[in-house]
Amino acid sequence: MINAKVIGATGYGGLGILEGLLRHPAARVTSLVARQDDTRRIDEFFPHLRGHCDLRVQVAGQEVDDGTPDVVFFATPNGVGMAEARAYLEAGVKVIDYSGDFRFKDPAVYEQWYGAAHTAPDLLAEAVYGLPEFYRAQIAGARLVANPGCFVVAAVLALAPAVKAGLIEPSGIIVDGKSGISGAGKSPKPTFHFPHRNENVEAYRIVEHQHTPEIETYVGDFGGQPVTATFVAHIVPTSRGILDTCYGRLRQDVSAAEAREVYLAAYADEPFVRVSRDGTCHGTGVVLGSNFVDLAVNVNPRTRQLVVTAAVDNLVKGQAGSALQNMNVLFGLPEDQGLERFGLYP
Amino acid sequence: MINAKVIGATGYGGLGILEGLLRHPAARVTSLVARQDDTRRIDEFFPHLRGHCDLRVQVAGQEVDDGTPDVVFFATPNGVGMAEARAYLEAGVKVIDYSGDFRFKDPAVYEQWYGAAHTAPDLLAEAVYGLPEFYRAQIAGARLVANPGCFVVAAVLALAPAVKAGLIEPSGIIVDGKSGISGAGKSPKPTFHFPHRNENVEAYRIVEHQHTPEIETYVGDFGGQPVTATFVAHIVPTSRGILDTCYGRLRQDVSAAEAREVYLAAYADEPFVRVSRDGTCHGTGVVLGSNFVDLAVNVNPRTRQLVVTAAVDNLVKGQAGSALQNMNVLFGLPEDQGLERFGLYP
Amino acid sequence: MINAKVIGATGYGGLGILEGLLRHPAARVTSLVARQDDTRRIDEFFPHLRGHCDLRVQVAGQEVDDGTPDVVFFATPNGVGMAEARAYLEAGVKVIDYSGDFRFKDPAVYEQWYGAAHTAPDLLAEAVYGLPEFYRAQIAGARLVANPGCFVVAAVLALAPAVKAGLIEPSGIIVDGKSGISGAGKSPKPTFHFPHRNENVEAYRIVEHQHTPEIETYVGDFGGQPVTATFVAHIVPTSRGILDTCYGRLRQDVSAAEAREVYLAAYADEPFVRVSRDGTCHGTGVVLGSNFVDLAVNVNPRTRQLVVTAAVDNLVKGQAGSALQNMNVLFGLPEDQGLERFGLYP
Amino acid sequence: MINAKVIGATGYGGLGILEGLLRHPAARVTSLVARQDDTRRIDEFFPHLRGHCDLRVQVAGQEVDDGTPDVVFFATPNGVGMAEARAYLEAGVKVIDYSGDFRFKDPAVYEQWYGAAHTAPDLLAEAVYGLPEFYRAQIAGARLVANPGCFVVAAVLALAPAVKAGLIEPSGIIVDGKSGISGAGKSPKPTFHFPHRNENVEAYRIVEHQHTPEIETYVGDFGGQPVTATFVAHIVPTSRGILDTCYGRLRQDVSAAEAREVYLAAYADEPFVRVSRDGTCHGTGVVLGSNFVDLAVNVNPRTRQLVVTAAVDNLVKGQAGSALQNMNVLFGLPEDQGLERFGLYP
Repeated sequence: MINAKVIGATGYGGLGILEGLLRHPAARVTSLVARQDDTRRIDEFFPHLRGHCDLRVQVAGQEVDDGTPDVVFFATPNGVGMAEARAYLEAGVKVIDYSGDFRFKDPAVYEQWYGAAHTAPDLLAEAVYGLPEFYRAQIAGARLVANPGCFVVAAVLALAPAVKAGLIEPSGIIVDGKSGISGAGKSPKPTFHFPHRNENVEAYRIVEHQHTPEIETYVGDFGGQPVTATFVAHIVPTSRGILDTCYGRLRQDVSAAEAREVYLAAYADEPFVRVSRDGTCHGTGVVLGSNFVDLAVNVNPRTRQLVVTAAVDNLVKGQAGSALQNMNVLFGLPEDQGLERFGLYP
Repeated sequence: MINAKVIGATGYGGLGILEGLLRHPAARVTSLVARQDDTRRIDEFFPHLRGHCDLRVQVAGQEVDDGTPDVVFFATPNGVGMAEARAYLEAGVKVIDYSGDFRFKDPAVYEQWYGAAHTAPDLLAEAVYGLPEFYRAQIAGARLVANPGCFVVAAVLALAPAVKAGLIEPSGIIVDGKSGISGAGKSPKPTFHFPHRNENVEAYRIVEHQHTPEIETYVGDFGGQPVTATFVAHIVPTSRGILDTCYGRLRQDVSAAEAREVYLAAYADEPFVRVSRDGTCHGTGVVLGSNFVDLAVNVNPRTRQLVVTAAVDNLVKGQAGSALQNMNVLFGLPEDQGLERFGLYP
Repeated sequence: MINAKVIGATGYGGLGILEGLLRHPAARVTSLVARQDDTRRIDEFFPHLRGHCDLRVQVAGQEVDDGTPDVVFFATPNGVGMAEARAYLEAGVKVIDYSGDFRFKDPAVYEQWYGAAHTAPDLLAEAVYGLPEFYRAQIAGARLVANPGCFVVAAVLALAPAVKAGLIEPSGIIVDGKSGISGAGKSPKPTFHFPHRNENVEAYRIVEHQHTPEIETYVGDFGGQPVTATFVAHIVPTSRGILDTCYGRLRQDVSAAEAREVYLAAYADEPFVRVSRDGTCHGTGVVLGSNFVDLAVNVNPRTRQLVVTAAVDNLVKGQAGSALQNMNVLFGLPEDQGLERFGLYP
Repeated sequence: MINAKVIGATGYGGLGILEGLLRHPAARVTSLVARQDDTRRIDEFFPHLRGHCDLRVQVAGQEVDDGTPDVVFFATPNGVGMAEARAYLEAGVKVIDYSGDFRFKDPAVYEQWYGAAHTAPDLLAEAVYGLPEFYRAQIAGARLVANPGCFVVAAVLALAPAVKAGLIEPSGIIVDGKSGISGAGKSPKPTFHFPHRNENVEAYRIVEHQHTPEIETYVGDFGGQPVTATFVAHIVPTSRGILDTCYGRLRQDVSAAEAREVYLAAYADEPFVRVSRDGTCHGTGVVLGSNFVDLAVNVNPRTRQLVVTAAVDNLVKGQAGSALQNMNVLFGLPEDQGLERFGLYP
């Protein structure tokens, strides 16, 4: 039985991993930690868990000794993991960090896009990017995993096979991302107030979103060449769900069927990637609550554009589901343990 | 007082023009016609109109003689206007048609994109495209106006100034459109059933939507050169609202401020176009119920992309509001009569 | 031209009266005041107003001299009006207050239900309850009007005719209220965060809501006898709209038709009350943005219950629309000036 | 391994039981049947099931021989079960029917409230009402189970303990039910069209809903005396979720704490009933996707009303979850097998 500690337990990201661990047959949560001074039971923070979990939340820095966990999840904002991960690593604890802290080899990239100094640059060399579809072997041997960004999971899985297969130009890629509101976390703000957000679609951080370098880095890494992408994020009135619509310029004529074959082959053995056989985009509604990413691959021969849509639940495959999948890989467990759920539809 | 007849009165498009005419100080509705065999009062179809309109709906083809109207609105699907407009024109009635029937000079374009033969090709020469911002003078002298497509109003206003000013390449343009569900009309279908549509974002008609040639034609016409665009339509869970996010490759370095100046100048005298001074996209929520189009112009210098968002209410500026604006131009009335409403927020 | 000042201009209640005044042919806004230290233009707070209003917000207590207004609207929380109204009244300014401050003749009722001392009890004697349907004459001669509570407008109009006509017992009345989220104001809180509120219906303040004594007082006053009511408030995932479902025990057998006649007669001359002729409840969707209250009157003969539903837009007839209607009555203007809008549907 | 057949597999009710069976460790689906002439794979009807189920839908009446199942679920409208259940029963197959067909001992009740003749009245004697919380023993020995109505599950669990304990009068009960839209099924209709339903709350079937006699029958049966209730159904803009707010007149003074004790005791051993300890109603949002019913018990001492809210997911505890729970009871399995899910929040 794997013992897991969750830091940032009272946010959506902490909730997601807690839920996954509660469903997991070979892991369990041993401590829940949050920054706030509120030590109620977790099912008082999240009443849907009554009957499923009665652990009390501990205040960060004042935890009682719950023993050394096997893995710690930093479901925390940027900056926490880089400050606190080292102590866990030195104690032999595997670390999975949700933030941007360990996603780039070069601390300068972090500093440029996140606007803060990196305080643990020496850890970047060993950190592995937590996208098992591309980095499974590396994750298996790692002790520090950087869980990917929500928009990025979808975009990288949507674009990398086309770049690798030489279908599209590596420059001029467009990623038009649409996200539900939980992607912004649990803290209320005027812009996430229901009456403001309902019946409202808008673009934000148009130039530029911090997920852009992550898209470029990992599409390029898997694709075998540097890429440049324009990413524009949008917020739509749903609780969950991301749809990334990705546009790439074809390098030569290719049919939709041929393009789909590239993706079907790339993901043939992947448990969580579904490629639409006829190019239909089924929408974010069919992945809610599940760890699937659904891809629809289409070709516009007139304008010579490849158009790939990728749908994920931003809180599952876009966040805590990937974290649990990474834990399974780290510990040599079946990759879908605790993640067998299909989506909640309708 | 302008007497107006509305054909297709029981759909959203008919409702919109009826509402606009009810608000209009110089026009009135004299007859409401629909295809169905249901002659109840219009406020039984639309109970929000109780106290405002008690006209009875007439069955198309069986209208009583309400006298010859000054203008007829075809708030009807493709094919109706081309079959029935001629009789009105010959009787001296101005015609405003909502469908694709009269939007292209070349009937072959219609036939290619709409998949049906054009039965009144001789009328295409005189038809004027109903976008007053670009074709005000032509509309003023016309008797047949083709009201523009909902996605197109936003996209053309978003892109044409950049093409005209030579800011962007005329090829490789991307329009990523997000629409609320009323854009699909009032007929219930599985795909518009609330439980299916709620918490769901999807792309549809990825290759290709019939609004594409209209975008290309009118961006190109106003921009002064042929353009090619990839347009992908998405459906988001709102009742109203379209946000078109438009991407164009810069031809030379230009700052966001310079690009905004081009748009501010282009629309300086337009009553219904608002250009965001600082590039903020305020979203579709601030245009609901109004005839405004809100533009946000941004430049990504790193990837050399111009990104322009355009927000409209698809049922107002995207449909019936444009139709009323066109009527005002046709009859020499102040262009904003009946259209002074600001949006319903929140 | 009536000059109006709005205190609390940056909340939903202030926005509503500003919008109404902008539409009003015989009134204008001369100053906008808010408590916060933010003196941007009002169209920066509310971008949908760009092109319609460019007034700057003033900081409460630091207003420049805009001259003495004819009327001041306190779109403010409880406690502000009772502290500040007197100075305006003494200067000859009419006052319309949105809060609970002036709704009860007896300060002890206020103190019991609002949990605070009343600091201007002497003003209660002259304050008039701002429900023109029942107190038109009194409002016309007043200088201080207490605008009614949002749930209350609907409930009182739904219940008072039945009590007055002796159709129902004055005790044991149930009001089950369902409100959209804007009823809670513009300040973001965890409970109004979109992801929490979406797909969620809940009851709150079950025992008891501060609108209860107001329902009892004014149903009883108009009905001619004391009444007791149980009111339970619910929150539903809409931006706007209240539906109050009101249940009363029949005193004798009465048919639905007879009951409807009572209501049709009671409201025959009212411009903003619509009684459904066949008992159909058309829902809150048909009153959004309008000042209407829609009533549906039904009788369950088996259980001997009268069931009356009342739908209002909580921000219009439930708040700022009533305030404007009250202003019209105060100044002898046509009661529907600035309020002619029908709802935004769909 | 229990072999299960699902009739009505392409509706929401069929989907729900299919999903439950896919999760169930001791049961499996052997055939899926629907009335329509469409034999695609079930994951083409419901793309979220891709990767989880590839069974093909069979046309009702033309099934291939899949062997005799152990249990058949009639996820069908009224009338189908009464016509077809007998053949299964005679073949030794347990039957669980979702409709009103077998919910009443007296066929006259069915005929009065459902407006159709009952064609299998002899089966009513043996049919057991499928609410395990009250009829566990009877279900265990039955071969024909009438799955309860969605509004009814919530109302009966909310009211019966109070009646049984003598807390409230058995007459004059009010049930104000609020349901999401999936309760109306999967067929698109104008009233469930997204733009009509969004931002809209309405009451329907005000006098009277067919769930009323079921509420009265089973509250009375468990409560030990006949009861009369007024039930008014409302539709709110969510996909899932029912909140029943139930009002009963207290027979004597009782505190909220005492009333809660009655409920806590009544449901102490129930795996799926959660009683709020402090009376907070957590809303439908915390039960989505789960088989829980969440009760909040409050007392208004001033008006002497007991107010109990009950929240369920109408498609789980309100439908397919109850059906699966009933199957578990029928076959002596742990009652929560396949039903361990907590809700999807947010």
